[in-house]
Amino acid sequence: MGDNTDLETSAAWLSREDLESARGRLPMLYVHAVPVRVDDRGVVTQLGLLLRADDDGGIGQEVVGGRVRYHEKIRDALARHVESDLGPVALPRIPVSPQPIAVAEFFPTPGVTPYHDPRQHAVSLTYIVAMTGDCRPQQDALDLSWVTPEEAAEMAMRGEMSGSHGVLVRQALAHVGFPV
Amino acid sequence: MGDNTDLETSAAWLSREDLESARGRLPMLYVHAVPVRVDDRGVVTQLGLLLRADDDGGIGQEVVGGRVRYHEKIRDALARHVESDLGPVALPRIPVSPQPIAVAEFFPTPGVTPYHDPRQHAVSLTYIVAMTGDCRPQQDALDLSWVTPEEAAEMAMRGEMSGSHGVLVRQALAHVGFPV
Amino acid sequence: MGDNTDLETSAAWLSREDLESARGRLPMLYVHAVPVRVDDRGVVTQLGLLLRADDDGGIGQEVVGGRVRYHEKIRDALARHVESDLGPVALPRIPVSPQPIAVAEFFPTPGVTPYHDPRQHAVSLTYIVAMTGDCRPQQDALDLSWVTPEEAAEMAMRGEMSGSHGVLVRQALAHVGFPV
Amino acid sequence: MGDNTDLETSAAWLSREDLESARGRLPMLYVHAVPVRVDDRGVVTQLGLLLRADDDGGIGQEVVGGRVRYHEKIRDALARHVESDLGPVALPRIPVSPQPIAVAEFFPTPGVTPYHDPRQHAVSLTYIVAMTGDCRPQQDALDLSWVTPEEAAEMAMRGEMSGSHGVLVRQALAHVGFPV
Repeated sequence: MGDNTDLETSAAWLSREDLESARGRLPMLYVHAVPVRVDDRGVVTQLGLLLRADDDGGIGQEVVGGRVRYHEKIRDALARHVESDLGPVALPRIPVSPQPIAVAEFFPTPGVTPYHDPRQHAVSLTYIVAMTGDCRPQQDALDLSWVTPEEAAEMAMRGEMSGSHGVLVRQALAHVGFPV
Repeated sequence: MGDNTDLETSAAWLSREDLESARGRLPMLYVHAVPVRVDDRGVVTQLGLLLRADDDGGIGQEVVGGRVRYHEKIRDALARHVESDLGPVALPRIPVSPQPIAVAEFFPTPGVTPYHDPRQHAVSLTYIVAMTGDCRPQQDALDLSWVTPEEAAEMAMRGEMSGSHGVLVRQALAHVGFPV
Repeated sequence: MGDNTDLETSAAWLSREDLESARGRLPMLYVHAVPVRVDDRGVVTQLGLLLRADDDGGIGQEVVGGRVRYHEKIRDALARHVESDLGPVALPRIPVSPQPIAVAEFFPTPGVTPYHDPRQHAVSLTYIVAMTGDCRPQQDALDLSWVTPEEAAEMAMRGEMSGSHGVLVRQALAHVGFPV
Repeated sequence: MGDNTDLETSAAWLSREDLESARGRLPMLYVHAVPVRVDDRGVVTQLGLLLRADDDGGIGQEVVGGRVRYHEKIRDALARHVESDLGPVALPRIPVSPQPIAVAEFFPTPGVTPYHDPRQHAVSLTYIVAMTGDCRPQQDALDLSWVTPEEAAEMAMRGEMSGSHGVLVRQALAHVGFPV
């Protein structure tokens, strides 16, 4: 889910051991941002997908996201993860309302919900975030590609995204009125 | 879109000629209700689909819906169309908020949006409505079938629903967290 | 409701007589945009209010809005009314999804809903629209003022907005998480 | 926030010490349910408010809510807290979608957001939940009262609710279209 670096940088809040311990006993609060490009009428023209190695040694397309820290506002967590994944000049339009377009419940047990995270129970507030600047994949991402809504919907269907992220992407497409 | 009977019964509001005339010059306001059965945790277990002859002489699965009348509240229009399509003892749970799960813009020109209505420009506020009573297809519907979310998603994909209604159904499924 | 000019410019769609006639027999579809300024975290810092003469000879603060035309998409209607009310370089961020933050049902009869329009039954899809450019009041507006969320909430309470617009503004503030 | 009993009953998941420790280092995931009575058109006719002693020795009106447990779905947490606060035959209509009407960010530091919880950083997904059965205040609640939307809005204004819950209630009222 793209927060390996989170472990290092959140040292002031929580040691790696404490975080691992908490992960087995509490739901973790996450945010995900589906990065998009929009035209001047707000129509989504492209989605940004990060190519990343997943926990199983495979690679897959993912959206932006990670954990919300102690005493961090949701909009600040969104901005931090956009910067961490897409660089400092992505210039995201953080949504005006904290109401998410979807709530993704990642369970460590497969099949409980459409979202699976072997490491933890994570509840993710999902947003669509328009990027207006220059986006470059950071750190653990191998590549960033911009695809049309049609291509994104097909990639999700063909299993080129990690399963949970494919569901998120199709939910985001449905929310903006694209036929999924 | 299932409002043939609407023409007759709305005589007090608008003659057939006036309605036809307005249809070519103003967007019509519609509501659609995706009928569902839910369990005691609010999980959608079934969707109700009406088999209807469409304007082209074909038949297809559709959801409940129709026009909002002059001086009629949205929640009253929803209740009226549920009764008109599913009978007087469907016992719908009309949503507490008028905020729709989706806004479907039906255009007379195909391809402008995913929604098409050859007769008119209609803007439909779409809701998910749980039915708690006995539903029976009324008037122009040939059949009512209750299918699982999985079956509904597949029927929409296979083109067994009128195109626009297939999109509506898949949007509704995405909204409740079902992987489309 | 700020669409006097709409009558003139929509002549290709509908004559003034036809529009007046339809207004007494069909619900009119409207859009409203609450104009805001946001910071780089998406926090609403200011709301834009237009001072306008109302139908009763009084003046009051209003938000942007007007009718949706035949064969016009909602996002195009939003862009058109923003330009018509705030000028050609307001540079609005039209929302990515047509899902409104609220549905305001204006009735010609006072008291049916919190929204009243003596001229017609109008159903308005309401959005929050961030402006990034230079906004100047156009045509029938006497002034445009930018106020803080706190000030806007108080102005709505003190009755300095036309009643229906005060309700819209407070709904918008609640939606973005401001305590109303 | 009404989850004192939560501490006892969640022993299988987390000891009191571990929970206290986590509360100072991770955001806790909460749910809140604004209990309502609705008529057959979905109109909210009454809100249910629990009178409870708060942490400061005062008493105030509150809505239903509490923590989400490890490996617990949001809809199951909602059902559990409704039962814990209103009894086993409240017969709640758990929402069909996990999309909340609001996200309330409770901070231990007053003034960061409109929501304050001296014990912790808690992020609460808020829902409106219609009750169809018999509700009786449980455990630490002194009383349950059903009030009209107008009365609830006024109680929130007069400070008869704990501050954060007053904001939640007014957000819920705005969401269902009540003028706040």
